[in-house]
Order: sequence, then C-alpha cells, then structure tokens
Amino acid sequence: MTDHTEADASPAPSIEVPASVPTGLSRRGLLGLALGGGAAGLAIGVGTGLAGGIAIGRERERGESGEPFAFFGPHQAGITTPVQDHLHFASFDMMPRTDRDDLITLLQDWSYAASRLTQGLEVSATGAVGGDARTPPDDTGEAQGLSASGLTITIGFGPTLFENEDGDRFGIASRRPVGLERLPSFLGDDLNPDLSDGDLCIQACADDPQVAVHAIRNLSRIAFGRARLRWSQLGFGRTSRTTADQATPRNLFGYKDGTANILASDSGALDDHVWVAASDEPAWLRGGSYLVARKIAMIVETWDRVRLEEQNRIIGRDKGEGAPLSGGDEFHEPDFASDAIHQDSHVRLAHPGQNDGVRILRRGYNYVDGNNSLGRLDAGLFFLSYQRDPARYISLQRKLSTDLMNEYIRHVGSGVWAIPAGAAAGSYAGAELFA
Amino acid sequence: MTDHTEADASPAPSIEVPASVPTGLSRRGLLGLALGGGAAGLAIGVGTGLAGGIAIGRERERGESGEPFAFFGPHQAGITTPVQDHLHFASFDMMPRTDRDDLITLLQDWSYAASRLTQGLEVSATGAVGGDARTPPDDTGEAQGLSASGLTITIGFGPTLFENEDGDRFGIASRRPVGLERLPSFLGDDLNPDLSDGDLCIQACADDPQVAVHAIRNLSRIAFGRARLRWSQLGFGRTSRTTADQATPRNLFGYKDGTANILASDSGALDDHVWVAASDEPAWLRGGSYLVARKIAMIVETWDRVRLEEQNRIIGRDKGEGAPLSGGDEFHEPDFASDAIHQDSHVRLAHPGQNDGVRILRRGYNYVDGNNSLGRLDAGLFFLSYQRDPARYISLQRKLSTDLMNEYIRHVGSGVWAIPAGAAAGSYAGAELFA
Repeated sequence: MTDHTEADASPAPSIEVPASVPTGLSRRGLLGLALGGGAAGLAIGVGTGLAGGIAIGRERERGESGEPFAFFGPHQAGITTPVQDHLHFASFDMMPRTDRDDLITLLQDWSYAASRLTQGLEVSATGAVGGDARTPPDDTGEAQGLSASGLTITIGFGPTLFENEDGDRFGIASRRPVGLERLPSFLGDDLNPDLSDGDLCIQACADDPQVAVHAIRNLSRIAFGRARLRWSQLGFGRTSRTTADQATPRNLFGYKDGTANILASDSGALDDHVWVAASDEPAWLRGGSYLVARKIAMIVETWDRVRLEEQNRIIGRDKGEGAPLSGGDEFHEPDFASDAIHQDSHVRLAHPGQNDGVRILRRGYNYVDGNNSLGRLDAGLFFLSYQRDPARYISLQRKLSTDLMNEYIRHVGSGVWAIPAGAAAGSYAGAELFA
Repeated sequence: MTDHTEADASPAPSIEVPASVPTGLSRRGLLGLALGGGAAGLAIGVGTGLAGGIAIGRERERGESGEPFAFFGPHQAGITTPVQDHLHFASFDMMPRTDRDDLITLLQDWSYAASRLTQGLEVSATGAVGGDARTPPDDTGEAQGLSASGLTITIGFGPTLFENEDGDRFGIASRRPVGLERLPSFLGDDLNPDLSDGDLCIQACADDPQVAVHAIRNLSRIAFGRARLRWSQLGFGRTSRTTADQATPRNLFGYKDGTANILASDSGALDDHVWVAASDEPAWLRGGSYLVARKIAMIVETWDRVRLEEQNRIIGRDKGEGAPLSGGDEFHEPDFASDAIHQDSHVRLAHPGQNDGVRILRRGYNYVDGNNSLGRLDAGLFFLSYQRDPARYISLQRKLSTDLMNEYIRHVGSGVWAIPAGAAAGSYAGAELFA
C-alpha cells in the first residue's frame, strides 16, 4: 500500500484515482465483506465501516516498481498493459434469485474496489485495520505493505450472463452479442465443466502473485450473496509480450511463445484485430473486446522424450533462438514456401498468412497444479487471447486441428467473455450494457 | 542462463562451481532424460549427449539479480539462505525393485544437476539445444534466458527411505536416525496420504517460479526409473525471513508471520536449534537438520468474517504492525504477564518461553490451489521448518493443541525428512549415509 494516510474515502492527491469514482461500496458489497463465507448473524456494524476510515499506508517493500495502472480509461487495463509476471483468473456465476439491480451494484462495487486495488490501496478506505475493531475488517490484509505491483483487473461477461436455463434473469438477453456463445467443440477437446465457462470473469494480473490473489479474494468477498466463484487459476511466467522491450518468454515445451504477438504500440493492429469497432455490433461493446480462455494441459513427460529435431519440426521454429526453420532470427518472417517448415507445424497453421490475416492478442500464462497419481506434473498453458470477435479465435482453432503439437496437449478448460470498454471515471465496467 | 558458452562440462571461470564436481550424469540419469515419461525404445543416442556439448548462455532477462547460491558447502543451501519469493516442493518415492546403487547414483545425479541449475546453467552441458538433434534434449528448456534467480535445491531423506513395508531396500535401516519417523497424529489432523510423506524430498526455492519449476521438472526426469514424484506443491509470498533486512511477510490471514524467526546471522541459535550437532546421533547427519512440512489449509472465508479485535486476540498481535498486544512495536518482546495476551493465543503458545526455549527455523510459503465446489479458495500455508530434532517440532505442535487459531485451519498434508549436511565439492548430498 502506498505511503500515505487518508481521512476519508477520497484518494490522496498523489494517487491517480479520478475524483469522481464511486465513493464507496454498496450496502450489499459491505454485507459481503462482513459475511464473506455465508454465515448469518455476524453483521455487526455493517454499513458503518467506511466513514472516516484510514487506509494504512506503508512503504513499498517488494514487487516491481513503476507507476500503477489506472482502472478507468477508454479500454480496460490488462489487455495491452505490459504483461505482468503473475495471473489469478477467476470465473463467477451469479447466485440464484439475483436480479438486475444485484448485477449492477456488483459491477459498481467491483469497479470501486478495482479502482483502489490497482492503485495499491486497500479494498475500502477503512481496509484491514482502519475500521471499527468490533467488526470484521473490510480488507483481508495480506497485501498490506505491498505495492500496486502493476495490478490490473479486467472484467468480462459470459454468454450465460445474458441468458441461461433460468431465462433472461437480468433483462439483457436481447443485448447479447451475436458472437458471444459457448465455444463450439474442437477436435481433441477434453473439457472439464468445472474448469469452463462462467457468467462473469475477472483477470487479475500483477508482478507479485500475492497482490493478484489478494484482489481475487477480496472481489470474491464483495460478491457474497450475488456471485460465487466457479473456478479459478493461478499462472506464472507470462507466455506473451505486449511491448517491444519485453523479452519473449518461454512456454513449458521450452519454446519462445508470443514472438508475433500484437504489441500495445501497434494501434492499427489493435483496431483491426482486438477492439470492437465503432461499426461493430452491439453498440454497448464498442471499445471492448472478447476474451477466450483455454486451459491447455501439456503432456510434458511425453514431449520431453521427443528428439530435438522433431520438436523443432512440430513447432516450426528452433528451440534455442525461436527462429523460424526457414532461416533468419526470431523476428524474421517465416518463409512458408520453404520445405523447412512442415505443412502442419504450429507456426504455419497459426500464422495470419494462413488464416485470412486473422491475428489475436495473446496473454497466457504457464501453470503447474501439482502432479497426478502417476507422478506426472499437472502442467500446461493457461491460454488467454483477446480478439475483436470470437469467430476469429474459432477459425484459428479449427485451423489448428491438424497441428502436429496436438499429440502433446489436451484442452481441459474453456470459456469466452465479452470484455466491455473501460469505464469512464465515475462510472463502472459494463455500464453501457444497462443504459 | 548466464552469459557465456562452454566447450565442455567444465564451468566457465566466472561461475562458482568447484572444479571437482561430478563431471556428468550417470548412465541411468541420462536414460531418465531420454525416457522421461516411461516409454521404452526411444533411447537414441543415450550416453552420447554430454561430451563436447555447449550450454547456451544468455543475458539475464528478468528475475532478481544477485549472486547465485553455491550448492556445495558445509550446510545445504535453502535453509539459512535469504528466503526466496517462490517455492516448488516435491516428494518422491523410490521405485519398486531399486537397490542401493540406484539410490546412490540418483543422489549423485541430483547433486550434479543441482550444482549446475543453482548457477543458472542447464541440467547438463548439452542442455536444451546443444546436443545431438536426433536425441531428446537433456534439458527441458523453459529456463533458457532466465538467471539463476537465487535458486536453491535442498534434498532430504524420509523415514520410509530407511525401511518400509518392503524392508531394508537400501541397506540403511540400521542408520535411520532414532527421531526420524512419521510424525504422530495431532489434534485436528485431517491428513491426505496423497499430500504426505515420501522417501525423498526436494525443496526448490527461487525468485522466479519458472526457475523453481524447471528445477523440479528436470530433477524428476533424471530420476526416471529410480524415483517417482509422489506429490508436489507450489508456493508464493514467503512467510518467513532469514535475514534482518528482509521485511516480515504476511500469511493469508493478513498477519505478519515469522517476526521471531531464527536469522541466518544468529549462528548461536542455529547451532542450538537447527543444525544437528557434533555431539548428536547419528554421526552421518551432523551438520544437517530435519525438515518438517505441513500443508495447512486456512479457512479464509470463515476467518474473514471474524471481527478484528477477535482476530487480534487469536493471534496475540495486532494486524497492522504485527506488534504484540502487550505493547511496543513488531520486534518488542511480548509480555506474557499482561492480560492483553490471551492464554491460548498463537503468539503465546508458539513462543520459546512457553516451550522450554524451543525455537525452529521457519521457511513456509502461502499457496492457492484454485477453489472448491462451494466457491471457496483452496488456500493456506505450506509450512516448512528446520530443526535439530523432529521431537522439537512435535512438542511445539502439541503445545498448539489449544491454539485459538485451530478453528480456522486444518492440517491436510505432513512429512518429515532428515536433511544431510551440505555436500563437499566432488561429493554428493548424503554421501556420509553410505560411507
């Protein structure tokens, strides 16, 4: 938390929180903080915690330095933001019998809290220790003393939010983007429903995993009674880059990944491939995007016993430098006329030139979730991509149906969410949907 | 990997690897690298990979800087080493029908590989891309381009290594330390056998999680046919400090943890409480220690709805500064004569003054393993402590049977291992056991 105190919910001048952000959590949000896990009868002092509280400020102690990223703006942060080192991704379902107002106040509460957390502040002005000691703390406190650590919080709306087996719960079924529907089955899918889908999603990225975990935990608490965590995933070792000065990281097959990713500086490509355009439908999503998440288990023990030349043939790049097998260095354009690049290599099938020019912005992370009973690491890639239309991911993924790499991977989780444009200061993520 | 190339397995002059380390992996270790996951018939070129290979060197790209930590020395690294930010802990069982030679060569191979990995080198001189391309690479490659990142690798021997239901497999039953046995049951234990025990353990700590994961993955490969991963755990947000300049970190209850930990600079306390002394038995373990691991699930949703004053009462310290409730700052000695500190508060029950002076060196990490079907985070503390005798941990843990905190935690995994002294250059971890 940054080094200052504040006498009320207004941010200190040195902190970049617009003056017009919501000034507090809703009553429901405060109730969530008080009741967290679900017990009734403990709501001592609910609604009294925010006034005159003190957000304890402390020196930065660790984590990457650098300016915090603003939550408010034309686009949500966490898309073109330089990819942080750690991820905590969470999918939520709205609780039974919630209504439109519940959803709206939840999004307002999340936006308020996110506008603070991303600045290195606690979830409310009273925070972990500044409130009435006879009440549960607003903030869980494990990020006290940590900086903002580059935290971004990105909020999305899944197909089931608009309509599910219970119908049009929130009066937004007619506003569902045509392209926002459960992804079709792909060859080789082995999806676990407990790792797939969800009414809402939050992507929290930070350079300190404790900061990302703290964000998801506190946003989950705020959602109490309104939305419930469906599944969540931690990741490390970003597998993409969004700025030219970020080195290309490596996936758990040992290869550089994301060499040809769309960079934040390439506004033309972002407009063409990532942002929902002014001419696109629906109007409420303009300036937003679509997020696809795929949990891709990598059969690393099998991969590791493949000979190097075969690994290179499968990827279409060399394992050391990441250079295309047709020659040149990492950033040299692959020459697909060359016999050196196999017809079904990953680099060829995924290349825009083989996909009617389609590009996506990748933002995935490596994961290791322990190991299975055979002693094999439960490891892989938590793939995240942003694109202007889910159809673009679908066509790309279908193209990959003959990818030589498929023998060594298994898609075990899947989801797609509409990502609204960034919230204007004083508003909240997705407000246009309810206008 | 550090910025140099090498013409053979000898380290470059700037890298602190003693000249007398084993010069390569055993035939079995190479076989493990080639066969990894267990298939037969792919052993092309096994045994040919090490001679004249080139370990690709690259600039540091990310991760904390700082000198690498030596694998060789009087004590194993990873105990008093300044606690790194990330953990990958792994427990192994020896495979059926392995013999004493298998165990010895495994420890030699692990020591050879660890001596390289901790210096930011690949697992062998040929590494990920320097070998014969017609063979599987020796190294899995995902740490190419990363620095040593403070990696330490610490190896331990569990009770079952000495003797199990199959008897004295390795001819070492008579050398089992008297105190090295499965921990007794404690009040409130809810242990999962799949998260407990193991013939061997490896603690890999690093400031970059990808470096720690890379180490465990490659050491697991080397063990192929000899030992198999039993369980493993990733952790973040170290919950202790071993140097005075490390800030006290916070656990997932939001409290500072490890304020009174034994520091690396306190050689008197280390001799008294951590290292097996020259007067202790068995002789082969002198200079070593005992490691206790406990996976402690924290019921964070329940904790989060406890009022602040009650949280403070349970811990015996205040949540903000970590000061004892009897007054003073974080590092002020608690006054147990004061009524302010509850008889069954954690700080009192765990204090050396209440435990015949017993102290342990703590080195735990926070973990989050996703969430359960109720939408609750599967989160907690992966507790690691080093002590001169397991009996010290046992007495301390029994003292904690009335800890007010117990209502909010559940011990779900457990293990104890003898940690041999550090290997002399040219030797291997645990050599004295087989002398």
